Amino acid sequence: MTVRQLSLPELTDACQALGIGKVGLWREPVQEYGVEAAARLVRDAGLAVTTLCRGGFLTATDPGERAKALADNRRAVDEAAALGTDTLVLVSGGLPAGDKDLRGARERVADALAELAPYAGDHGVRLAIEPLHPMFASDRCVVSTLAQALDLAERFPADRVGVAVDTYHVWWDDRAPEQVGRAGAAGRVHTFQLADWTTPLPEGVLNGRGRLGDGAVDLRRWRRLVEAAGYTGPIEVELFNEELWARDGREVLAETAARFLTHAGEEAPE
Amino acid sequence: MTVRQLSLPELTDACQALGIGKVGLWREPVQEYGVEAAARLVRDAGLAVTTLCRGGFLTATDPGERAKALADNRRAVDEAAALGTDTLVLVSGGLPAGDKDLRGARERVADALAELAPYAGDHGVRLAIEPLHPMFASDRCVVSTLAQALDLAERFPADRVGVAVDTYHVWWDDRAPEQVGRAGAAGRVHTFQLADWTTPLPEGVLNGRGRLGDGAVDLRRWRRLVEAAGYTGPIEVELFNEELWARDGREVLAETAARFLTHAGEEAPE
Repeated sequence: MTVRQLSLPELTDACQALGIGKVGLWREPVQEYGVEAAARLVRDAGLAVTTLCRGGFLTATDPGERAKALADNRRAVDEAAALGTDTLVLVSGGLPAGDKDLRGARERVADALAELAPYAGDHGVRLAIEPLHPMFASDRCVVSTLAQALDLAERFPADRVGVAVDTYHVWWDDRAPEQVGRAGAAGRVHTFQLADWTTPLPEGVLNGRGRLGDGAVDLRRWRRLVEAAGYTGPIEVELFNEELWARDGREVLAETAARFLTHAGEEAPE
Repeated sequence: MTVRQLSLPELTDACQALGIGKVGLWREPVQEYGVEAAARLVRDAGLAVTTLCRGGFLTATDPGERAKALADNRRAVDEAAALGTDTLVLVSGGLPAGDKDLRGARERVADALAELAPYAGDHGVRLAIEPLHPMFASDRCVVSTLAQALDLAERFPADRVGVAVDTYHVWWDDRAPEQVGRAGAAGRVHTFQLADWTTPLPEGVLNGRGRLGDGAVDLRRWRRLVEAAGYTGPIEVELFNEELWARDGREVLAETAARFLTHAGEEAPE
């Protein structure tokens, strides 16, 4: 998503050129390219797929909408399995129109997970509940904190349901570090994503994620925290950012890789 | 602030016409009008001032800036005392430029409170720490939850430092209800403010607070919660909203009073 201006073949080329061996994919471009063709493309390029983003949107009260959402999530599991990734990221969904009951919506997410987790498990795919920043609580994701995500995940086996830790969404939360520990101890950190927090936020607040190092998040501290909790998986950089999308995608990818090393590399620069 | 298009005399007139007996004021229009003149104006109109907004912005690391902030907050206490309100609302302030240490910033707020609370107490003024929505954590308020605000407040006597509960900022937080109980039990709910949560958020996210009833917040439930915790003080409606500011202020005030009764009145409508 950081370089969504690149087609999938351009993306795999650019990753190869930069020595990037793993990539997180979103469903829309994969579906557009064709799931099997996309799987072949990344495999032939020697790339591993870290996660597929995203399933979820499981908060509907209407039975028809709910059934549609569950079917779509089963398709997402199929797509993840076809791409060879073991992790499908889930964004819970917001409140239905006119609904003011966050707790009830979270319970519907739990009910949906109970239907999806066995299906995912049968396909070798883990579900990663991603808490989104509280500014998305009404319209996108009723799960706002790692604690809430873990409360949901812990109703299921760790190899079926875990959490996605994205610095953009949890950096402000003083309870998040202890929750990373809770998740790590149970083997429930299913992916770790980096983005920085910059202001002012743009209209709609969706596409203003900061480039690594531009914002308020101590990214290296977060990396150490997540790794200290036992996480050894890939680290993704997911920037929804209109300015980055308007630039040359290969240049953005190279810059992002360099910023990763500077701001979140294992060693702090001299 | 809901009707900032009204001058202070227009505001007091409109309150009298609508039978509104109490009003929350902001410092800027009060200073512009003259503190003593404003105090006389509201007193002559038979109005009580619920709170003065706002002091705070206490996170500077630079000693000069810090001294300036403390002096300004002492002035804010003086202004509150002159207006006859017992409550000064504090917004903590954000991270200094380049700083990524939220916890350190919160400790500087605590240090500042230690200097300000005795001064406020000597003037019969209580400080109300207002947690702001986490989307303001970097640039406006490092105190994002009621739990954090209470952790700070509890270092001081309850009649000196408490919290402001604003539904706009805390509605998403599943821990907020228990924290309202914690605050209420200790007599630390120093004011209660209503605003609704609507999306999409505008650029900069400051001035998009929803009119009562337009958004995702169950306002009557929040009122019951705060009153069940022992709060018997006034309920303020604080809407930062460009659309409301562009309209006739008296009409907005009347509409807001009517919406208050519909969506947060003691009795649910038939």
